[in-house]
Amino acid sequence: MTLDRGSVQSRLDRVRAYMHAEPLDALVVTHLTNVQYLTGFSGTAGAVVLLPAACLLVVDFRYVTAARAVTEPLDGLVAVSTFDTSYDEALIQILLHEGSARVGIEGAYLPVGRFNALASGLAAQSPLPVAPAESAPILVPTERMVERARIIKDVAEVATLREAGRRLARVARDVPALVEAGRTEQAIAEDIERALRAAGFSRPAFETIVASGPNGALPHARPTLRAIQKGEATVLDFGGVYDGYCVDLTRTVQLGPVSAAIQRLYAAVAEAQESAIRAVRPGETASVVDRAARSVLERYGLGEAFGHGTGHGLGLDVHEEPRIGRATPRLPDERLEPGMVFTIEPGAYVAGLGGVRIEDDVLVTDTGCEVLTR
Amino acid sequence: MTLDRGSVQSRLDRVRAYMHAEPLDALVVTHLTNVQYLTGFSGTAGAVVLLPAACLLVVDFRYVTAARAVTEPLDGLVAVSTFDTSYDEALIQILLHEGSARVGIEGAYLPVGRFNALASGLAAQSPLPVAPAESAPILVPTERMVERARIIKDVAEVATLREAGRRLARVARDVPALVEAGRTEQAIAEDIERALRAAGFSRPAFETIVASGPNGALPHARPTLRAIQKGEATVLDFGGVYDGYCVDLTRTVQLGPVSAAIQRLYAAVAEAQESAIRAVRPGETASVVDRAARSVLERYGLGEAFGHGTGHGLGLDVHEEPRIGRATPRLPDERLEPGMVFTIEPGAYVAGLGGVRIEDDVLVTDTGCEVLTR
Repeated sequence: MTLDRGSVQSRLDRVRAYMHAEPLDALVVTHLTNVQYLTGFSGTAGAVVLLPAACLLVVDFRYVTAARAVTEPLDGLVAVSTFDTSYDEALIQILLHEGSARVGIEGAYLPVGRFNALASGLAAQSPLPVAPAESAPILVPTERMVERARIIKDVAEVATLREAGRRLARVARDVPALVEAGRTEQAIAEDIERALRAAGFSRPAFETIVASGPNGALPHARPTLRAIQKGEATVLDFGGVYDGYCVDLTRTVQLGPVSAAIQRLYAAVAEAQESAIRAVRPGETASVVDRAARSVLERYGLGEAFGHGTGHGLGLDVHEEPRIGRATPRLPDERLEPGMVFTIEPGAYVAGLGGVRIEDDVLVTDTGCEVLTR
Repeated sequence: MTLDRGSVQSRLDRVRAYMHAEPLDALVVTHLTNVQYLTGFSGTAGAVVLLPAACLLVVDFRYVTAARAVTEPLDGLVAVSTFDTSYDEALIQILLHEGSARVGIEGAYLPVGRFNALASGLAAQSPLPVAPAESAPILVPTERMVERARIIKDVAEVATLREAGRRLARVARDVPALVEAGRTEQAIAEDIERALRAAGFSRPAFETIVASGPNGALPHARPTLRAIQKGEATVLDFGGVYDGYCVDLTRTVQLGPVSAAIQRLYAAVAEAQESAIRAVRPGETASVVDRAARSVLERYGLGEAFGHGTGHGLGLDVHEEPRIGRATPRLPDERLEPGMVFTIEPGAYVAGLGGVRIEDDVLVTDTGCEVLTR
């Protein structure tokens, strides 16, 4: 996605507000998806130094042309900075030049080896005439500085995800016809991935899951050479990357007459999904949405058969915030806001019998939600 | 790849020798490719705690069955450990239970946030009756503890890479026929990826490169909708993952009568590749192999046109050690040993004219090298 000046200004300002609250004089962003979010640049290497009044995109010689091309429409909002040494040495020089005192780094991503190299480089090269340990910039591990901004999609992102959802729903419409007796899971998975590309997705968002019969009882099964049989349910979970953004969808296809037990599983999961989708609205918490799905399955006696969360956020990553699941002391709850996009994907898995999962993608609107994949 | 007891014993022992030299009482391995190398387990999460007399594979509930299945043939060499809390809490409990004093972590991979959480958890929960700061296990950032073992392939790995190379060479044999005037780069790339799957590769090892005419001047071009024209050179760079191991190959196809300038480029690169392959033998350094390619291109006046290294190691990752390039203060040279597997891929790129790259994969033998992709 090529970004416009307004989107980038708003993204940088939101992250600067989080910086101000810490407080930080600079934020070094090394996680590449976060670099892409802030600047529109996507490469296999790169970093951002976000300052109160400037944003530097640091790239090596391979990416100078590409970085300039994406930042040009931003009209000086993001400056491209290149170097003759290493990324870490370039970051050290920039931070010393800016005189930043408190520098945030991304605690969830920066490896401890790089953290130590940056810290000792800053201490050793600090030009101030007092003891290095006191004068050098301090590196502060931070959490979710960019992720908190990414959780609310802006207008351009919503448009992209809506179009991606529409295309994915069209692929899904043709999927039941692929599930024929005698065809292998792998052959069907290949057909789905071909259909994704034909629908305009640049690549599958993850390895397509086709899990038939007993294999359906494993939520993350990989496609095997098992042939589909009549009377079975097959779980098909697939997604695509469209203009950089990920969408994700699951259908469970029943071939021929299936047992009453499987029919009941399907009815329970479908009802759970409907219930969860109806619960999505601004101001509600993610755990309430999870509970809406879970309580339906519990009513069917399938509480134990639903071993994962109800959904996950979508965006530049196929798994991002918000997490739609139970609140726990380690994993705090999230209050839903307009602009959040996530999956609703309850399932029920019974060893020996098989599994059912139904997944759609929703956008939180001002009044409730919009299903993007129908 | 399912591992046998002998391979795993030898891998664990090699890493234990590096631990002993530090010295370390335990090594926490969190990089998933390294976890896979040591245990055969591949999942989206997992960790290893390597101890002097035990090896624990730590997995969450999703992977207990899969982890037990791969470790069973190892006959107790790797024990599966699961937990009810979080990975970090499980690691803390294991390290405290073992009483390890000096614990290595992977400095290149463990994020600083996790490092700090582990360190403070160990300090807070240390049961010894003295001051926590003195008694808690010390976390020591280490570099290349597992990578140094991975650089020399064992018998099973060599067999897998040899078979993978044979299959990739077969795919390459059919590639020239795909390059027809009027076909787009993207269509050819899709054909190659389909051929990789048909040849038994589980997936492409990276996004296939098809760079025609002027696009060939960019070493890492992505396939576009540009149609191939007669009189052009097209660079086709592709690879596959076979039983977990990556191989990688490039051919440059000339369609119809090409200019003398392109023919000269091709002749220079082919000669550079031959020269580099002839230089590969145990005891030689990687930089001498790089020099062998580079000096040929310099003789043709193409030194500046060859802007990347001569090769990279292959294994569980498509880019791993050894690096076949110039020695620099930051990037030390590597002495070649039997069992190393890497690419030899000189190229020449001339803006406006196009590019040529020729890449094969070699195994260092006791006396020289074996080309795996011919």
